[in-house]
Amino acid sequence: MVEKITPRSQDYSRWYTDVVQQAQLADYAPVRGCMVIKPYGYALWENVKDGLDRRFKATGHENAYFPLLIPMSFLQKEAQHVEGFSPELAVVTHGGGKELEEPLVVRPTSETIIGHMYAQWIQSYRDLPLLINQWANVVRWELRTRLFLRTMEFLWQEGHTAHATAEEAQEETLRMLDVYADFAESDAAVPVIKGRKSETEKFAGAVASYSIEAMMGDMRALQAGTSHNLGQNFSRAFDIRYLDANNVLQYCWTTSWGMSTRMVGCIIMVHGDDQGLILPPRLAPVQVVIVPIAKTEEERSAVLDACEAVSRTLADAGVRVKLDARDEYSPGWKFNEWELRGVPLRIEIGPRDVAREQVVAARRDRPGKEGKSFLPMAGLANAISDLLVQIQRDLFARALAFREAHTSEPTDYEAFSAAVESGFARAWWCGSIACEDRVKEDTKATTRNIPFDQPGGTGRCIVCGAPASETAVFARAY
Amino acid sequence: MVEKITPRSQDYSRWYTDVVQQAQLADYAPVRGCMVIKPYGYALWENVKDGLDRRFKATGHENAYFPLLIPMSFLQKEAQHVEGFSPELAVVTHGGGKELEEPLVVRPTSETIIGHMYAQWIQSYRDLPLLINQWANVVRWELRTRLFLRTMEFLWQEGHTAHATAEEAQEETLRMLDVYADFAESDAAVPVIKGRKSETEKFAGAVASYSIEAMMGDMRALQAGTSHNLGQNFSRAFDIRYLDANNVLQYCWTTSWGMSTRMVGCIIMVHGDDQGLILPPRLAPVQVVIVPIAKTEEERSAVLDACEAVSRTLADAGVRVKLDARDEYSPGWKFNEWELRGVPLRIEIGPRDVAREQVVAARRDRPGKEGKSFLPMAGLANAISDLLVQIQRDLFARALAFREAHTSEPTDYEAFSAAVESGFARAWWCGSIACEDRVKEDTKATTRNIPFDQPGGTGRCIVCGAPASETAVFARAY
Repeated sequence: MVEKITPRSQDYSRWYTDVVQQAQLADYAPVRGCMVIKPYGYALWENVKDGLDRRFKATGHENAYFPLLIPMSFLQKEAQHVEGFSPELAVVTHGGGKELEEPLVVRPTSETIIGHMYAQWIQSYRDLPLLINQWANVVRWELRTRLFLRTMEFLWQEGHTAHATAEEAQEETLRMLDVYADFAESDAAVPVIKGRKSETEKFAGAVASYSIEAMMGDMRALQAGTSHNLGQNFSRAFDIRYLDANNVLQYCWTTSWGMSTRMVGCIIMVHGDDQGLILPPRLAPVQVVIVPIAKTEEERSAVLDACEAVSRTLADAGVRVKLDARDEYSPGWKFNEWELRGVPLRIEIGPRDVAREQVVAARRDRPGKEGKSFLPMAGLANAISDLLVQIQRDLFARALAFREAHTSEPTDYEAFSAAVESGFARAWWCGSIACEDRVKEDTKATTRNIPFDQPGGTGRCIVCGAPASETAVFARAY
Repeated sequence: MVEKITPRSQDYSRWYTDVVQQAQLADYAPVRGCMVIKPYGYALWENVKDGLDRRFKATGHENAYFPLLIPMSFLQKEAQHVEGFSPELAVVTHGGGKELEEPLVVRPTSETIIGHMYAQWIQSYRDLPLLINQWANVVRWELRTRLFLRTMEFLWQEGHTAHATAEEAQEETLRMLDVYADFAESDAAVPVIKGRKSETEKFAGAVASYSIEAMMGDMRALQAGTSHNLGQNFSRAFDIRYLDANNVLQYCWTTSWGMSTRMVGCIIMVHGDDQGLILPPRLAPVQVVIVPIAKTEEERSAVLDACEAVSRTLADAGVRVKLDARDEYSPGWKFNEWELRGVPLRIEIGPRDVAREQVVAARRDRPGKEGKSFLPMAGLANAISDLLVQIQRDLFARALAFREAHTSEPTDYEAFSAAVESGFARAWWCGSIACEDRVKEDTKATTRNIPFDQPGGTGRCIVCGAPASETAVFARAY
């Protein structure tokens, strides 16, 4: 272990894969495009799950579970949906040794099968809103895959809600986008731009899609979560109707929203550096690692006692702490390993620290002396908790400053084309697909979203010069 | 909702399905043999998961995630394994619009793909033991399915461990069986018999399988969890080897163990009665439901205030409490509904209770007056917590007494044949497959397991009269 990580400046994509593998987050699976999520990566995902699940429950959602296998005919009921997903399907044609009468699709997403069930469950306005989330695996036959970012199978949550009115559905759609943004910014320390997807970029079957977009360390964009207002598209396709208070049969208004293991890739690329991973304290499986430093057997026993006492104190205070007391590795080797694995804070305890009743705390996000401090044993749990809060805040601030430093507002197409080479370009856009297409062809950049936060007024489309009422964020994207 | 539940005495199987559906635990899916786990059923499963996951982590296991799709050739590497699972496979033959070169199997269990990865991850004795668990969905093409008990797709956890020695693997196998037994008895209030499966009943590819077996309300047996010692069968098939301390290459010893959503069916059938579900407090999604009782608008406001105060008090004390303040239903209707849904304890608060600063507590497991008591508002949280502990204990005691009342030790084959009609028969068995087969043919009963807890000494096989050194539990099983 602990091979050399390719520097970001040399090959960002290689850096990413090195970090994922060497930090032991994930590994390649024997099936093309699939990955194995290793224990450390899965522990990170469990913390992502907890952070989201708590928020879903606090906003009135319940979890449920729907089948993995969906009759092929279901996919075909919503025209845009089938068109969007057909090229990506994995199809079960044989079961129990026989060929099936109707092929079954391994779910690429669950609007159709959930729509089918909602049609049976929803009778009257009293059954609404129906607010359900599912934690599940999905399969999409992707050609170009990358660990966490785009894999044939991935883990995610998909929320599916049904409402009595268009207004409620829209409120829900935006509420869940806010939940994602809050999770991303508060827990993952990832600043995001909330906005509406363009017509070409929206979900297959949605009336309107919304996303949160983040800037990665190579200045490309990553869509970290999406929330869709499905209007009545799926309720008409699946006959999801309710009797309203006047006893009139109405179609429901539905939404769906999802965040996936892709978020893990996002965290890696927003915070990581050439030493490896840097994890935000709120999601880090290990928040604090304690490394004992002793040369002689005599020193070792006193140092280990102190390490164990500190470990207990921190664990009791709710800190996720790990004492690395392995004999076979030197302190320097351990420093490297835990830096590579992104533990936010390292505590070193040597004989002198024991004598002085102190510890050395070293921040992962501030290499060298700058990030080191001496903390007295007395009141250590509070000091460490405060430091973790500070690290969380600093990681967010750094990511935000980075994004701002690499976001420009070009006013002509030449400057625009240069800008999307190395960052986000925010520009007026007339809304036409033709202009989107041209940008994509010229620069490989796409509209990420049309931010909620608009400058106001009107302008001229950065591409065609026609009048434009909104600005969009353009960038190359994952 | 709240239709009539078929009495158990009339049709136990129908009773079961009525309870599952009317208590809103699960529903049939449009794909044959699949189910939808509804929010209430999923919340119960989440509590099962938490109870197990906590125990897995406390015994040193980590969670990870392996791919859903497994190359067909992997299944074929272990001879018994492929023979056991081939008839049950769902096979993906097409992906991304093309026919695949090698078909992929939707995992029926993950020994093979995990074995493939372990072969890469394990190099030396320092990498051992490797203790990993996975929470996942699996698909087995079952012909006769029943909600929760046997479905084509089900949710489960599967532990997979690798060890340096046969002894360690055997210890792990039994440790996890103990974990299952402790979960079943402490959390699910389900008494279980721990023992070894016979050769015919063991897992396809195992050296030895162990199970916990429980008695359902119709006196049939249900295998609630299994733990397998896989010996070196899979390490040889997948080349999982390590360098020992003397630098000699050795095959690992592996284990696997699983518990599934079947456990939910087990809980239903062990505790339920003709009124519906009865949930053990430690797993109940709602432990206490509060029903306000008020006739006039005037009464209503004071009663609701009291209900809300009680609800807050209990929630603060960590009780999972629900206040059912719905206007549109009468208290009697609510009583029925929450009884059907198995909430362990109901609190009723009327104007008189408000005046007397008390509540009425009604136990789900003791219908009528016997289960009702008045509890003063002062110190209510403690009294309720104690009562929940008492209910948990009483449910276990009742299930144990039921099992003991329906377990016999017949000494001749005629009595034996009668005994397995309505309960467990514990009898000496010579260990031969021929005798197992005869019992199955004559009575539909199978060996459930050979309990660890043996009478000692020797006896005569209940079937053939040959000398026997062990007793087995025989029963009809789910």
